[in-house]
Amino acid sequence: MFSEKSAEAGVTYPRGFLAAGVRAGIKKSGNPDVAMIYSEREAAVAGTFTKNAVAAAPVRTSQAVVATHTARAVVANSGSANACTGVQGDADAAAMQRIAADVLGCASQDVIVASTGIIGQLLPMDKVEQGIHAAADVLSPTGSADAGRAIITTDTYPKAGAISVTLGGTEVRFGVIAKGSGMIRPDMATVLCFITTDADIDGVLLQEAFSEVIEHSLNMISIDGDMSTNDMAIILANGAAGNPKIMEKGDDYALFKDTLLVLCQGISEKIAADGEGATKFITVHVKGAMSFADAKTVGMSVANSPLVKTAFFGEDPNWGRVICAVGYAGVPMHPAHTTVKFGGIPVYADGVGVSYDADALRAVMTAHDIVIEIDLGDGTEEAKVWTCDFSYEYVKINGEYHT
Amino acid sequence: MFSEKSAEAGVTYPRGFLAAGVRAGIKKSGNPDVAMIYSEREAAVAGTFTKNAVAAAPVRTSQAVVATHTARAVVANSGSANACTGVQGDADAAAMQRIAADVLGCASQDVIVASTGIIGQLLPMDKVEQGIHAAADVLSPTGSADAGRAIITTDTYPKAGAISVTLGGTEVRFGVIAKGSGMIRPDMATVLCFITTDADIDGVLLQEAFSEVIEHSLNMISIDGDMSTNDMAIILANGAAGNPKIMEKGDDYALFKDTLLVLCQGISEKIAADGEGATKFITVHVKGAMSFADAKTVGMSVANSPLVKTAFFGEDPNWGRVICAVGYAGVPMHPAHTTVKFGGIPVYADGVGVSYDADALRAVMTAHDIVIEIDLGDGTEEAKVWTCDFSYEYVKINGEYHT
Repeated sequence: MFSEKSAEAGVTYPRGFLAAGVRAGIKKSGNPDVAMIYSEREAAVAGTFTKNAVAAAPVRTSQAVVATHTARAVVANSGSANACTGVQGDADAAAMQRIAADVLGCASQDVIVASTGIIGQLLPMDKVEQGIHAAADVLSPTGSADAGRAIITTDTYPKAGAISVTLGGTEVRFGVIAKGSGMIRPDMATVLCFITTDADIDGVLLQEAFSEVIEHSLNMISIDGDMSTNDMAIILANGAAGNPKIMEKGDDYALFKDTLLVLCQGISEKIAADGEGATKFITVHVKGAMSFADAKTVGMSVANSPLVKTAFFGEDPNWGRVICAVGYAGVPMHPAHTTVKFGGIPVYADGVGVSYDADALRAVMTAHDIVIEIDLGDGTEEAKVWTCDFSYEYVKINGEYHT
Repeated sequence: MFSEKSAEAGVTYPRGFLAAGVRAGIKKSGNPDVAMIYSEREAAVAGTFTKNAVAAAPVRTSQAVVATHTARAVVANSGSANACTGVQGDADAAAMQRIAADVLGCASQDVIVASTGIIGQLLPMDKVEQGIHAAADVLSPTGSADAGRAIITTDTYPKAGAISVTLGGTEVRFGVIAKGSGMIRPDMATVLCFITTDADIDGVLLQEAFSEVIEHSLNMISIDGDMSTNDMAIILANGAAGNPKIMEKGDDYALFKDTLLVLCQGISEKIAADGEGATKFITVHVKGAMSFADAKTVGMSVANSPLVKTAFFGEDPNWGRVICAVGYAGVPMHPAHTTVKFGGIPVYADGVGVSYDADALRAVMTAHDIVIEIDLGDGTEEAKVWTCDFSYEYVKINGEYHT
C-alpha cells in the first residue's frame, strides 16, 4: 500500500518542493541556522501549534497563515526562539515573513515562519535577513538534508523521513524534517516538524487529517514533561502528484491519513530516541483502558516520572515506580486488574510483583530500546507514548545550557 | 503568641508522649528502622493520606484508625514499604498493628501503622516483631530523636520541630518528626509526618484543622513530581495540657490551627531542602492569582519543571524556562501582566526580559536559598511552593537505588 523511502530525501522527495539550509551566524557555534522550504506551486497548508499561553511571536504569525489554508513556503531559524520578545518580537516575525515573501515573489500571508533556540532574546535581524537571501539563492530539489540540519538545536542528529502511497492510481509522496530533543512533551514542546506532500487535497480536510494524526504521533512523545513556547507542526500539500483531488472522507482520505500517520509516528520515535542525554528509547504501551484519553494519561504519567526515567537509566527493573506512576495518573484503575511487562516479561500482576528470570530481564533492561507494557484490564482502548531515560548528561546539558 | 522550641524535643515535647527508635535489621545498612510513638492517655487522631490509587497496605490500615478519631500509638518501619504486596501485605500491616497493641496494652484499632522504603517486598515480619518489642522496651520522654532517625530513608538528616502556644491561659505544646526526600510532590508522596500535641480538642475539629493545614504546608512541596504509595501525615492530640477543650471554631481553634500551620510549614521547608541530591532550596511564590488553586497550580508547574530545576542547579538565571512553565500550567494567564523576580530582582515583565545587575543576580543564583516570585497580575490570591534543584546526584541516587 505504502512504501518508506530514504529518509535523506525528506521534504524534497515530493514533487514540486525545493529546500535549503544555510549558516547565517545566529548560532554561536556557526552551525547552519536558517532553513527554507518552497513549493513551486500554491499549496494547501495545515498546522498544529503549542498550547503554551506564552506562545512565541512566530507561532502567532504562522497561525494566521494556517487559517488561510494556503501557503507557498516555510522559513525557520535556530539559535534564537523569538519568544518573550514583546512587540519587537512580533514585528521581527512579520519581517522574517515579508523578507522571505519578497525574495520568493509570493505574498507574506503565504509564508510560515518558525524559530527555535534561546528564549528572551531579540532576533539578530540583519543575520536573519542575510540568511533568508542566502537560503533562497541555494533552494534545491535535493536541499532537504541541509534544511534539516539548519533547524536542530541540542539534537544530536537531524530527523527526516519519506514515504509514498498510491492514491486513485497515482503515486503520492510525503517527506518530513523535524527537530526535537529537550522540553518535549504532549503538545509537542520544542518540536519543529515540517511535512511536504505532492498530494492534492482540500485544505479543510487536510487540517482535520493532520490534527488527528499529530494527536496520535507527535503529541505522544514525552522527554522531560516540559512544553515549549515555539512548537509547531506544518504540512504543505501542493497537488503536484496529480491524484484525483481528495474532497471527501472516502478511501483516498483514509489512505492519505494512514500514510501520514506512519510518517509522523516514525519521526516521533526518532525525536524521542534523541531526547537530551538519552541512553534508552522507551515505549510505554498502555492497554485495557476505558478510553484513548485514559490510556494516554497513564502513559504520560509513567513517561514523565523522573523516578521511572532514572531507574531505566540505571537499568533497574523497578516496576514499583512504574505502578506508582500509574496509580497517581488520575485515571481510575484497579491494582489487582493491572499487569506490567518489561520487554514482554511480566513483572507485576494481581496487585503484587511477579517472579521473573533475572537473566532474561537483565537482557531487556540493558538493551537500548525498551517496551513498558501496562494493561489496565478495564477496557479495550490503548495508546503508545514514546520517551527516553533521564541521565547525568540530561542534567549536564540543561544545567550548563546558559542563557 | 507562640514560640518555637528546640527541634530535638520533637514529638516528646508535648506532655504525655513517649517515643523510641531501634535497629531491627530491616534496612540492609543496619540503621534504625522501627519507630514508635506512644501517648500515655487516649488521644484524638487525625490524618491525611496519599491519593495514589496504588495505596500501600499500612495506608489502608491507618485510614481505618483515623476514621475512629481516637488512637494511642504510632508504629512505623523504614526499609520496606509494604506496598504492592497484596493480601499478605494487608495481613502484615494488621499484624504490625496487633503486635504493637499487645505489647502496649491497647486495642489494635488504637495503633497507626506506617511503612516506607522499597516497593513490592513483603515485610520481614520476624524482624518487625522484634523491632516493635525492642522499641516498646525503650519508650522514653526523650525518645523523639531516635524515632526520627528510624523513619528516614534517603533523607540526609532527620526532620523534627517543636512549638508551644497559650490557649485559654494554658501552655499547649506541639512536636513533629518527619521523613521526606525523593518522590515528594503534592499529596505528600513519600512523606511520613507524625505530629503530637497535648492540646485538648474535639476529634472532628482536629481532622478539619489538620486537613486545612496540610493542604497549605506538606501538600505545597514538590521534589520530582512523583507521588508515593505510602504517604501519611498523622496528628495525635492527648489533652494532657489541660486547656479548655476546643469544641468549636472560636479563637482557641484559630490559634491552634495557626500554630499547627507554622509547625507544618517549617517541617515542609526542611523536607524540600533535603530533596534527593538537592543543592538549592527553592521557594516558588506565586502572587496575583484569581484563586489559591490557580496559584498552587502555577507554582507546582514551575517547581516540577526539570528544565527549571536543572537551570537552578547550574545557577543559570533562565527566566525563560520559568515563564514557559507558567505558560503551560493550564491556568489562564497574560504574559504582559506577569512579572518574575529572582531573589527580589525583576527578570521578566511586560512580556519581555528585564535588564538586571548581573553581579546582584549572580549573588542570588549562587546562594543556597532562592525565591522565585511570580506575580500573575490578575488577582489577589497567592501560594508558596517549596522545592529544590535537580542535580547529578539526584540521577545517581535514583539510577543506582536498585530494587
